[in-house]
Amino acid sequence: MKLLVVGSVAFDAIETPFGKTDKILGGAATYIGIAASILGTDTSIVSVVGGDFPQEDLDMLTNRGVNVDGVEIIKEGKTFFWSGKYHNDLNTRDTLATEVNVLAEFNPKVPAHAENAEILLLGNLHPAVQLSVLEKMAKRPQLVILDTMNFWMDTAMDILGQMISKTDVITINDEEARQLSGEYSLIKAAEKIRNMGPRFVIIKKGEHGALLFHDKKIFAVPALPLEEVFDPTGAGDTFAGGFAAHLATTGVISFENMKTALIVGSAMASFTVEKFGTERLEEVSQDDLKKRIGEFRQLTAFETEIYK
Amino acid sequence: MKLLVVGSVAFDAIETPFGKTDKILGGAATYIGIAASILGTDTSIVSVVGGDFPQEDLDMLTNRGVNVDGVEIIKEGKTFFWSGKYHNDLNTRDTLATEVNVLAEFNPKVPAHAENAEILLLGNLHPAVQLSVLEKMAKRPQLVILDTMNFWMDTAMDILGQMISKTDVITINDEEARQLSGEYSLIKAAEKIRNMGPRFVIIKKGEHGALLFHDKKIFAVPALPLEEVFDPTGAGDTFAGGFAAHLATTGVISFENMKTALIVGSAMASFTVEKFGTERLEEVSQDDLKKRIGEFRQLTAFETEIYK
Repeated sequence: MKLLVVGSVAFDAIETPFGKTDKILGGAATYIGIAASILGTDTSIVSVVGGDFPQEDLDMLTNRGVNVDGVEIIKEGKTFFWSGKYHNDLNTRDTLATEVNVLAEFNPKVPAHAENAEILLLGNLHPAVQLSVLEKMAKRPQLVILDTMNFWMDTAMDILGQMISKTDVITINDEEARQLSGEYSLIKAAEKIRNMGPRFVIIKKGEHGALLFHDKKIFAVPALPLEEVFDPTGAGDTFAGGFAAHLATTGVISFENMKTALIVGSAMASFTVEKFGTERLEEVSQDDLKKRIGEFRQLTAFETEIYK
Repeated sequence: MKLLVVGSVAFDAIETPFGKTDKILGGAATYIGIAASILGTDTSIVSVVGGDFPQEDLDMLTNRGVNVDGVEIIKEGKTFFWSGKYHNDLNTRDTLATEVNVLAEFNPKVPAHAENAEILLLGNLHPAVQLSVLEKMAKRPQLVILDTMNFWMDTAMDILGQMISKTDVITINDEEARQLSGEYSLIKAAEKIRNMGPRFVIIKKGEHGALLFHDKKIFAVPALPLEEVFDPTGAGDTFAGGFAAHLATTGVISFENMKTALIVGSAMASFTVEKFGTERLEEVSQDDLKKRIGEFRQLTAFETEIYK
């Protein structure tokens, strides 16, 4: 299946307890695109950048087999920029600067070759922009995956609600799931969110892994415990990218296959946090990925034959 | 193998967002004993209660096959009492009252029939008391399991350090592991704690499950997501009890078997939190337990054949 990704392609400047970066390549669609390219998924990106965006970064994606024809370049504009500083626990951060720039007027253009993509992954953006992409598809994709955040719940809940109602899979963190549903219990939260539209709800819990809810079924994946998390930026996007790419590459949309997709996404995200930005993810081969998925099997496998 | 449990047998008064209790049966050894009895483990308890402790509560344990000959009754004394109120998220609580009573002068007496127990589970108590029990054993048990908490790290770290150095398995929560080791990363924390003595480190993460560390190996178990956690009191003790009981009943002490033991402990703890105090755990049959262990298999099983 073809995967169409809509999301930011951007600059980040990141500070963690371990160091800081200048402006480096970032953006949800960037991480998603790189993740998908590891599986060789047929992937196209729709985004917008300014005249200040380096051609070599676009070339990097192209060379990985990611189609960037849908990345509009506004010569007279500037690329979206985010700067943040992580606290010592790396679970919380302060935003130091957000320069929306060309993303403020983002009017996504879906290239003809991507209009019939079977899987549409809507990265975290204004829900009105996300909705507009769905309307521009030649036909409704088989699977619409939505990533969003509390900022849109606070500022654009009405239109976010419309977007959610047209979504198949929503990925959201635990606090956002509680805010969106008004329920503390994640089971109850997921049920309320499923009643808003999505058949599948993925709740991300950072260092504690993730949960997938569908009907009355639940699947839990732990995060791989890492000696050191160096930079969490992009982990959630990488996770979504690996998830969507596995589904697209295998062409099977089912709860069972989504379990595997969650492992793939978690394994990919565990690479992203090992270095700043996209640096580590860009190095990952399919063999590296297989090895890490093997570590997830080791981490979670147990024997309970005597209790059957 | 025989299991010897040393820990409190006590009264609790609990308030949660869902209701409150009068003085009810509590104590680490109580939860551990009930959990072990579900597996039919050969279990003895060493503890102390006051003259106010109901004979029927001791009879309940006896009727379940738990030997309470080592529970000293100090007629003129009062039983340990704890009262607490849980916050809305059920992850934090305020202690309203702690009356140490007979536990202040607790001088554990190990009955002759239990002196050669192969597995010794030291529930959360003053580390000097825990150490004294170890010294009273006829021979060093094959496995010493230690539960402790931050209170002893703050007030009796020297003697706690001695106790930890003689321990095989330590169970501790994530914040305590960080305090004990001075490391934020749980991998690094576990490594430092293993260097203090224990070959096996279990880090409990409440609603996020638990991690088992041994050499360079890690096993992760999620907590079963529950619609509603009613009362978390005793969950950690039940978890330790199920863990130790599985090892004792199967008679195999290995990393592989500890994985299964962690699942058993987690499954048992998931019952405890469903009602106040020991009420739910007392109802659980072996069939209930098997069914719940099956739910853990469902929750965590995934297929990654194509990534081998």
